Amino acid sequence: MDTYSIKKQGYDPESAVDDGNRFLIANGYMGYRGTLEEAGSGSYAAVNLAGVYDQNGDRWREPVNAPNGLFAALNFNGKALSLPGVTPKDHFLSIDYRHGIFERYTDFGEVSLKTERIASLSSPHLLAEKITLNFEKAGKASLTTGISTDIWDINGPHFKDIKCSHEKALLCNALTGEKEILVSVAQEVKSDRGFKETIEERSDGIFRILDFEVKAGEKAEFFLFATVYTSLDLKDPSEAAAALCEESAERGFDLCKKENNTAWDRVLESCSVDIEGCDEAALYMHASLYYLNSIAPRHADNLSIPARGLSGQTYKGAVFWDSEIFLFPMFVYTQPEIARSLLRYRIDTLKGALEKAASYGYRGAFYAWESQEGGIEGCTNFNVVDVFTHRPVRTYFRDKQIHISADIAYAMQKYYDITGDRSLLKEGGAEVILQCARFYLSRANAHADSQKIDFADVIGPDEYHERVTNNAFTNRMVLFCIESALGLSKVFKDSQDYLEDLYDRLDYRKDLELLSDLSKRLERYKEKDGIIEQFDGYFDLEDASLKEVKSKLCNDREYWGGDHGVAGTTRIIKQADVIALMALFPEEFSKDCVKANWDYYEPRTEHGSSLSACMYALTACRIGEPDRAWDFFMKSASIDVKGGGKQWAGEIYIGGTHPASNGGAWMIAVLGFAGLTIKNGRPELNPNLPKQIKRMRFPIYFGGKRLVCDVTREAWSIN
Amino acid sequence: MDTYSIKKQGYDPESAVDDGNRFLIANGYMGYRGTLEEAGSGSYAAVNLAGVYDQNGDRWREPVNAPNGLFAALNFNGKALSLPGVTPKDHFLSIDYRHGIFERYTDFGEVSLKTERIASLSSPHLLAEKITLNFEKAGKASLTTGISTDIWDINGPHFKDIKCSHEKALLCNALTGEKEILVSVAQEVKSDRGFKETIEERSDGIFRILDFEVKAGEKAEFFLFATVYTSLDLKDPSEAAAALCEESAERGFDLCKKENNTAWDRVLESCSVDIEGCDEAALYMHASLYYLNSIAPRHADNLSIPARGLSGQTYKGAVFWDSEIFLFPMFVYTQPEIARSLLRYRIDTLKGALEKAASYGYRGAFYAWESQEGGIEGCTNFNVVDVFTHRPVRTYFRDKQIHISADIAYAMQKYYDITGDRSLLKEGGAEVILQCARFYLSRANAHADSQKIDFADVIGPDEYHERVTNNAFTNRMVLFCIESALGLSKVFKDSQDYLEDLYDRLDYRKDLELLSDLSKRLERYKEKDGIIEQFDGYFDLEDASLKEVKSKLCNDREYWGGDHGVAGTTRIIKQADVIALMALFPEEFSKDCVKANWDYYEPRTEHGSSLSACMYALTACRIGEPDRAWDFFMKSASIDVKGGGKQWAGEIYIGGTHPASNGGAWMIAVLGFAGLTIKNGRPELNPNLPKQIKRMRFPIYFGGKRLVCDVTREAWSIN
Repeated sequence: MDTYSIKKQGYDPESAVDDGNRFLIANGYMGYRGTLEEAGSGSYAAVNLAGVYDQNGDRWREPVNAPNGLFAALNFNGKALSLPGVTPKDHFLSIDYRHGIFERYTDFGEVSLKTERIASLSSPHLLAEKITLNFEKAGKASLTTGISTDIWDINGPHFKDIKCSHEKALLCNALTGEKEILVSVAQEVKSDRGFKETIEERSDGIFRILDFEVKAGEKAEFFLFATVYTSLDLKDPSEAAAALCEESAERGFDLCKKENNTAWDRVLESCSVDIEGCDEAALYMHASLYYLNSIAPRHADNLSIPARGLSGQTYKGAVFWDSEIFLFPMFVYTQPEIARSLLRYRIDTLKGALEKAASYGYRGAFYAWESQEGGIEGCTNFNVVDVFTHRPVRTYFRDKQIHISADIAYAMQKYYDITGDRSLLKEGGAEVILQCARFYLSRANAHADSQKIDFADVIGPDEYHERVTNNAFTNRMVLFCIESALGLSKVFKDSQDYLEDLYDRLDYRKDLELLSDLSKRLERYKEKDGIIEQFDGYFDLEDASLKEVKSKLCNDREYWGGDHGVAGTTRIIKQADVIALMALFPEEFSKDCVKANWDYYEPRTEHGSSLSACMYALTACRIGEPDRAWDFFMKSASIDVKGGGKQWAGEIYIGGTHPASNGGAWMIAVLGFAGLTIKNGRPELNPNLPKQIKRMRFPIYFGGKRLVCDVTREAWSIN
Repeated sequence: MDTYSIKKQGYDPESAVDDGNRFLIANGYMGYRGTLEEAGSGSYAAVNLAGVYDQNGDRWREPVNAPNGLFAALNFNGKALSLPGVTPKDHFLSIDYRHGIFERYTDFGEVSLKTERIASLSSPHLLAEKITLNFEKAGKASLTTGISTDIWDINGPHFKDIKCSHEKALLCNALTGEKEILVSVAQEVKSDRGFKETIEERSDGIFRILDFEVKAGEKAEFFLFATVYTSLDLKDPSEAAAALCEESAERGFDLCKKENNTAWDRVLESCSVDIEGCDEAALYMHASLYYLNSIAPRHADNLSIPARGLSGQTYKGAVFWDSEIFLFPMFVYTQPEIARSLLRYRIDTLKGALEKAASYGYRGAFYAWESQEGGIEGCTNFNVVDVFTHRPVRTYFRDKQIHISADIAYAMQKYYDITGDRSLLKEGGAEVILQCARFYLSRANAHADSQKIDFADVIGPDEYHERVTNNAFTNRMVLFCIESALGLSKVFKDSQDYLEDLYDRLDYRKDLELLSDLSKRLERYKEKDGIIEQFDGYFDLEDASLKEVKSKLCNDREYWGGDHGVAGTTRIIKQADVIALMALFPEEFSKDCVKANWDYYEPRTEHGSSLSACMYALTACRIGEPDRAWDFFMKSASIDVKGGGKQWAGEIYIGGTHPASNGGAWMIAVLGFAGLTIKNGRPELNPNLPKQIKRMRFPIYFGGKRLVCDVTREAWSIN
């Protein structure tokens, strides 16, 4: 079995959205959905750009999709051979997870079409595609290819002005409405055969019509090159796009592909996890790492990764806590420069976090729940649409999910703990930690008649329970953040001047005292019969079963949370919460305690978020029960291979790829099954292999070099 | 025009519920709905008992309806003459607001039926009725009368055991399910004519069948006497009911009625408001005072008044802040012994309030939002049923509407301020105030890094906006409560020992210091361009018009509030909130300020609560614009005469009479139009008569005697 690719045989127009995610190619700069060459907005064709956002009117801000420079549609003997519209004799899609190569094959009968497509990992502005046509019959062929502006937009249109032109390359310059960002796409075509070319500018883009005659049995190859630059990259994106496009076309598809493959080989060397004993698991693991690496920011040093990667505009293309808690671990252990980029993004968006805190009357840094460029908060106050009234519902993700700032401080501290590299803290990380801690100081609920400190009116990881008090996870994360702030004096004990200057600049001395006091007064969590209460009053909620709660739904797409939702007033939770706390602070909970809480909370968890499975699996491994982790691992790792899953929250489409789940799969395998930890400054394994896995090998980057970890049931080594 | 009665001509079975409220007779001990003699549960027949509650299973606790001892149904020549079922030739209902006399007349053609019914104000356990039959034709008549158990229950049945028997009187002993309270009803019939009596015990009660023959043109009179006692009144209610019933029957209907009338005359002498210039207004005013006085607790010294009076089981028969803010003023100025009873009820239920606070982790007294006997909280966490899913919705009236404790402290203080009578404070009132203040001390949200005090996560009078911070009304009421607590040392300056003992007993000294500090730190309200912000962030809400908001409704019965409601996320409010604050603290706001806020908030107010109109009207009078108050006055005063109004909150029926609106009508007339205040220890008038009113006369009770106030546009006097 090939554990590095999947192939989907047969044509099913209904699965176009799902396939668009599953067969996505991407390179961190952009994602090209796994749609057919002839696809338009109706089939969710999109070239999703990292870090480029636009707001159309008062609709949600979301990332911008570039015009599609790899559009191609075939006509033979006067008949359009496009899907849907004709019924193919044979059809498949495939993706190669080793090198990020999309393939499509369609047998139309008289002609078969095969394509091969890459989003170059070595040249981030480049898309390239090879089209091979095999003609059974003689006749007149016509291939229309060019730059299509008929692309999927959820809250678009995002371009207020589109101008097409052509010299050697076709060019499309599109200007966004809100911030007037220029998005330039160039396209060039090469072929070793003759054709007559007609350029056609239409309302939906600019196209070349390539007409040629073929004999029966003849083959024709075309090579498409499309490039994308924006005015955020450089001053004249149009010129750059045209230049790169022509240069790439000159160098040819094969060379472009070779360079792409080499770049991918290097990535896999740094992070591939090879599983022996279960080919299915091996495939899912490779797939997870593909989906994750394909969207990692390699072209920039201060970008993070949106919650649905580069698969579209869902979740507003925004960066969530997923980055720090679910993606960061894989990167920090294998490609720390990417982990660094994720955190630099937070350093660079500190200003937005300070402004958000101030807008709510708080001091310090309250990071955006759904962070867009510059730390702009993409999360609105109305994040769910009621399925019965079709009216937006007031949700509190934006204003009450305060753990986000601590999540960022947590990763910032862990980056230092794991890499020993203090430079990130010095380049703004320390300031982020201090400002996050200050936020919690001002957000704390003190009492007029006691020393007690609460964090009231918050939402923890389990979003179904809104506006709760003393969420155990949140309180512990806050404490970690405060302790990190206080601990900076240790980190910088040999350069106190730096820290003193920082304290001065931030006027922080009084806050240090208050934080030190606060940290002693903050209750971490309440326990009853060994079970940590998720928040004050959780145990008073109705103890309905998942099945009972589900049976109350009146509509499949209903949102489960809040005061109207079926789960909101019961103990049913969306995702790991107390268990997430235990996953992040393994040293603080005994095996018995973890086991008891696992047994209590797991049956009460919907796992309605892709962030849930990983936490349950990690903790299962740590109590020595990796077999409990297996299904969660397979679910996490296969989520994008299989597609489907939860696609709707109320009336909002939330599908796409699941980077956090992919990162979670790595966490389960490496931190869970292999049990990687750093002890006394050295990496160590504590294997908990489930019965399906015989052996696992994976690299880590530690202490300035690459080490290879090798685990079997009997032994482990790190070399 | 008779301004002391209304008559409704014609028969309309659809309006049975409404008529049941409109033609209610009551005497504080019980309310007998204005239903027909032959009515059963289908027509909402009910004998609502004050202060007797029962919970059936896990349904809402609600007051108990006694079996109906005034049941009567006529049969003539083998034909049942009951409504609905036959079409009457003529029919009317009327009520005399002077003496609380219900009348019904139905002309069935061959026979006409006239009844006259009282709930004796002089003998609170007694109901009496006179039935007059006029026969056009000769024939055989049969009158079935007795004690019917077919009574309206919302969340019943409430009797787990019903036993009927008879000696002289018919007897029905019914035992409630939850607390095994015995409700005993006795019935006796007198007539000056002969009849054959057969006693019949059926599953729906015990009845006498009275058979007699009549000649054409003959008249027959029957007198029904029904008495009700419960085991909360005395040990053997059954014996007491039988004894009173027989004794009353012996004394006869006319004497019973005369005593009732005399008692009513005394009540009217103490509080009637006579309006000249507008008969309609005069009628509504008389009606309001009738509805209010008929449910005032005169038989007990520690009962309050439920939100829907004694008109049924809606609002769970519970006591709300209505009692202290909307009913208390009329009583304290006219019949202070009843005002005292309302507050004694709170003193006696302090234990429940202490327990409620403790259950939420607070100290002090957090009174029930919907208070039943002993201060039991009748308000559940699910007080609205969603009209789309038919599922209960989590509401926060119970846990977040914290102003209730301050409302009680406010009335407690005002009782002393107005009457000068310190005994109530000494008999527990002071302790109530101290415990309420202590509750706020422990409920306050202090800050770890500033001296600021917030009251977060509350609901103010406007219930559509749940879980807000620093509701201006709430903050001011809390401050009043704290200042009252601190001010007790002045009230008791000549008996410091009493206070010292109280402080000792409550361990209150430390709290006094903390309260003194808190009162200085608490912000009263935020202002912007002269408009007080209802709560933090109110001005950031969508500024939609009432019309726009209403147009978003998908169902007429939809609840407007909360995160799903059409108003919850806009500036549209349910009822006076900032204006309620101004109404309660008139000395603190300039006329200009009140006017600006009135102009801002009134168009944004749905007036979806009967508590709203009175506040707007009072403040309008105080800025010298009584004409703005007129419509509100007429709406408040006519609410139960006209019936209708808001009958549903989600799927919950909330109809009944509106004591708070009746009390509000008195407040508008006396405190608003006449402008009654106490200045320098003496009552004073500041007339603001609207153009419709020429003269108003009303008594008040002040300084131990009754004074009569007389107001015209030109002059006023108090004698």
